[in-house]
Amino acid sequence: MGKEIVLTGITTTGTPHLGNYVGAIRPAIEASNRSDTDSFFFLADYHALIKCQEPERVKQSRLEIAATWLACGLDTDKATFYRQSDIPEIAELNWLLTCVTAKGLMNRAHAYKASVDENVAKDQDPDFGVTMGLFCYPVLMAADILAFNAHKVPVGRDQIQHIEMARDIAARFNHLFGHHFTLPQAVVAEDDSAILKGLDGRKMSKSYNNTIPLFDTEKKLKKGINKIVTNLLEPGEPKDPDDSTVFDLYKAFASDEQTKEMRQKFADGIAWGEAKKELFELVNGQLSEPREKYLELMSNPAEIEAVLQAGAEKARARARTMISELRNAVGLVDFV
Amino acid sequence: MGKEIVLTGITTTGTPHLGNYVGAIRPAIEASNRSDTDSFFFLADYHALIKCQEPERVKQSRLEIAATWLACGLDTDKATFYRQSDIPEIAELNWLLTCVTAKGLMNRAHAYKASVDENVAKDQDPDFGVTMGLFCYPVLMAADILAFNAHKVPVGRDQIQHIEMARDIAARFNHLFGHHFTLPQAVVAEDDSAILKGLDGRKMSKSYNNTIPLFDTEKKLKKGINKIVTNLLEPGEPKDPDDSTVFDLYKAFASDEQTKEMRQKFADGIAWGEAKKELFELVNGQLSEPREKYLELMSNPAEIEAVLQAGAEKARARARTMISELRNAVGLVDFV
Repeated sequence: MGKEIVLTGITTTGTPHLGNYVGAIRPAIEASNRSDTDSFFFLADYHALIKCQEPERVKQSRLEIAATWLACGLDTDKATFYRQSDIPEIAELNWLLTCVTAKGLMNRAHAYKASVDENVAKDQDPDFGVTMGLFCYPVLMAADILAFNAHKVPVGRDQIQHIEMARDIAARFNHLFGHHFTLPQAVVAEDDSAILKGLDGRKMSKSYNNTIPLFDTEKKLKKGINKIVTNLLEPGEPKDPDDSTVFDLYKAFASDEQTKEMRQKFADGIAWGEAKKELFELVNGQLSEPREKYLELMSNPAEIEAVLQAGAEKARARARTMISELRNAVGLVDFV
Repeated sequence: MGKEIVLTGITTTGTPHLGNYVGAIRPAIEASNRSDTDSFFFLADYHALIKCQEPERVKQSRLEIAATWLACGLDTDKATFYRQSDIPEIAELNWLLTCVTAKGLMNRAHAYKASVDENVAKDQDPDFGVTMGLFCYPVLMAADILAFNAHKVPVGRDQIQHIEMARDIAARFNHLFGHHFTLPQAVVAEDDSAILKGLDGRKMSKSYNNTIPLFDTEKKLKKGINKIVTNLLEPGEPKDPDDSTVFDLYKAFASDEQTKEMRQKFADGIAWGEAKKELFELVNGQLSEPREKYLELMSNPAEIEAVLQAGAEKARARARTMISELRNAVGLVDFV
């Protein structure tokens, strides 16, 4: 039995925040250290082009996100870390899969249907503003997964459908051309511990504009933490840790022992200012080393480039074997 | 001023017949000998996958068609001759273009609409049996053309819309990311001389099952010609050359002088058997050398492979430059 292949795509628009770290980066890196899995991480920059037509933003975000994952301790000797756009086999597989995908399947994709519904509600053409990129996105995502025959794909709930589509497409290809693809499984976090609260107590998310950037300066991290909304309870008054964003963030970074102590401090009526100070110290203590590494990497893009090139080579070695098998299956072979 | 780039895609399903030769192969090869053009010919085998899920048929057809063009005198020192599927840059460009193509544009494609109409007439789901391959086909065709910034694309009338779509997609990309693409022009044969009649007098076409294969044996060529439908006029009775498939085929292979002589023979009441015999001799005379070359090539696939590999290298040299320029434009650059 080979190792279980776990594949994670990382969107490359925007700058990583604490929520990304706690909810995605840290657990993914931890999981990649397990000896029974073979982890693939990729910067989904072909996907980024669907929504982002600003070259500078695409560039900068790819760089920042690569630096972030490396700074957070991703071990590229264990995991395969690459840019999607460095693997031409994915674009080729995308076409092979396009040929066997039913259009009806894509018609049912949530993201596409949401755009259509929005247009219809506004009395516009149902496909107004919809690009083929948005419409074909699930096929490319299937190619991302199937190029490596990944067994498991950790995703958010909104992405479960795409994994189901990848299964459908894989099964169709297998049916037509023989068994080549493993049917991938979505892995969705069962509990909510992976969801960090943002400044306003809602889920930390770019779309709510309530994030704390992961690798901003120490000063800005402190400022961000000080902006967390609290209630009006005075120092000395007992506070409810389970209804506090400050405690929520603290817990996300603390050991069990530390969490227990802080819980007691809440009961003892710790002042909000004091609690925020302790939160800052805890988070900053854990981030200062990776932050330094991050800044070092950002000032040395060549180092990141070299890591990604090596990752692409590792990934391509597999993808090449796969695409060559598939080309053979569909009839695109050399004449000798 | 560089040379004018003329790009011709060759479908790789089925076996070439006399109609393909007269209507497409011969004129294209003649045109490729002009010193002011730079001709690109490619076996459209990615496209073949849309309709054909029989690997053996795809394989065989690619081989036969490559051998046919080479046997008919395509000079690969002058023209660039390659398999589409040997140019991974085309699949990559396909994705870049997918991201800027409006879905509404694809909704209007004739081939797709015809499938929808057929389904609707049968009270079926409009997209019944429609693959994403069929739906996305015009984007891939745009990639075929734009990867080489072709100026002109000789096509049949049914393909004009696809060239217009390629222009639209190119213009959209240029608008978003700066001027990178030449807007291609469709070239449609103005007269009907390129359309050869088949056995039954209709246009020679696989779909009418009225074709004469190009490189069948001499015996089968004779048999094919003998099957051409004629009227009941006896030897000695004057015959109308302009209403005769036999004359039509003769003209397609004859010099002006020969055509004039045959016209006279028709007026003089040549027997159908005699006319067919002269037709066979004329056609066979012109095909026997290429037929021999064809058989020689078919028994030596390694030679064809070498020619196509060399062609792919020539084509990729250009496509690589182009895709690197485009990746830069959209933000998919290396970090150093």
